[in-house]
Amino acid sequence: MAEEAQNGASANIAISGVLIQVSVPASKAEEAVTFYKAAFGAEEASRACCSKRKAEQEQPSLLCAELKISDTSLLICGQLEDLAPVKEGTSPSVRIRVQVDDVETAVGKAVKAGAQLQGEIGVDETACGGGALGNLVDPFGVSWIVVSPAKAAEAEA
Amino acid sequence: MAEEAQNGASANIAISGVLIQVSVPASKAEEAVTFYKAAFGAEEASRACCSKRKAEQEQPSLLCAELKISDTSLLICGQLEDLAPVKEGTSPSVRIRVQVDDVETAVGKAVKAGAQLQGEIGVDETACGGGALGNLVDPFGVSWIVVSPAKAAEAEA
Repeated sequence: MAEEAQNGASANIAISGVLIQVSVPASKAEEAVTFYKAAFGAEEASRACCSKRKAEQEQPSLLCAELKISDTSLLICGQLEDLAPVKEGTSPSVRIRVQVDDVETAVGKAVKAGAQLQGEIGVDETACGGGALGNLVDPFGVSWIVVSPAKAAEAEA
Repeated sequence: MAEEAQNGASANIAISGVLIQVSVPASKAEEAVTFYKAAFGAEEASRACCSKRKAEQEQPSLLCAELKISDTSLLICGQLEDLAPVKEGTSPSVRIRVQVDDVETAVGKAVKAGAQLQGEIGVDETACGGGALGNLVDPFGVSWIVVSPAKAAEAEA
C-alpha cells in the first residue's frame, strides 16, 4: 500500500477489458483470421473494416477482427506501416499459453495450419508446469506455448 | 469446413484456458509481479515456487505467478536461460491491449510504476478504434496499448 502511494498510483483505473492484440500487415489480416481459426479453433466475435480513413489516401482496406479462444480475446489488426521482420532465435517476452488436454494433437493441428514447432514436445519445466509442452511460432510472428496439466504419472525419475 | 478437413484439422481440441505468459529473468520475477500490480492493478491469483529442480544444479529459485487483470490471466514466469535483450524500435507482433475509460490517468499510473510511453497519447487509428490510445513498453519488454472507447465528441474534422 505504501509502495502504491509512493508511486502516485492512488487512482483506481477501471479496466473494462484486456485483449491480446496481434498486428499483421493489412494485406494479411484476413489470412491471419483464417489461420487462427484453423490452428487454435478461434471463433470470430466481431470485425470492423475501414476502407479509407481519409478520402485522399490510397490505402488498402483495414481489417480488425476480434477472435475468441476459450474466454480470451485475440484482436487481429491489419496495419499499414511496415512491421519489423520476425527474428529467428530471439526469446520473446510475451507468449500465448494455451492449456489443452492433449498437447500432441493440439500442436499437430496448429502445425498443419502453418505454425512451426520449435524443437520437440517436451516437459514443461517452469515452476507452474510439469505436464507436456510444445513451443510454436506462427506465420505472423506470434509465439505460442501449448501445455497440458501436470500428471503424477508423467513424473519420470 | 473443406479447408479444415484439408488441413487434417478435424480433431476438436479442447482448450481449457488461455494465458498471456510473460517471461522474465528468474532474478526479476518478483519485481515483475510488483510492477504489474502497481502499473495495471493486477491481482495475484496464485504462485508456484521451485527452489531447485535438480539438487546438483545451483540455480536461483523459480517463481511463476498468475496475475489477473480484468478477467485475463497474466502468467509471470522466471526463466533460467538468458532472454534476448529488448530491441528498441522494433514493432512487436503481440501487444496487450487494455481498455479503460481514462487513457491519460491509466498511462500516468503505468509510467509512474516504471513503464515508458512511446510517443504521445493520440487517437486510435485502427479499424476498431476511434478513442484515445497510448503505447507503452514496460521494464520487461512487454508492449501495451491503452485505449478508450470511441466517442462521437472526439471525432474532430
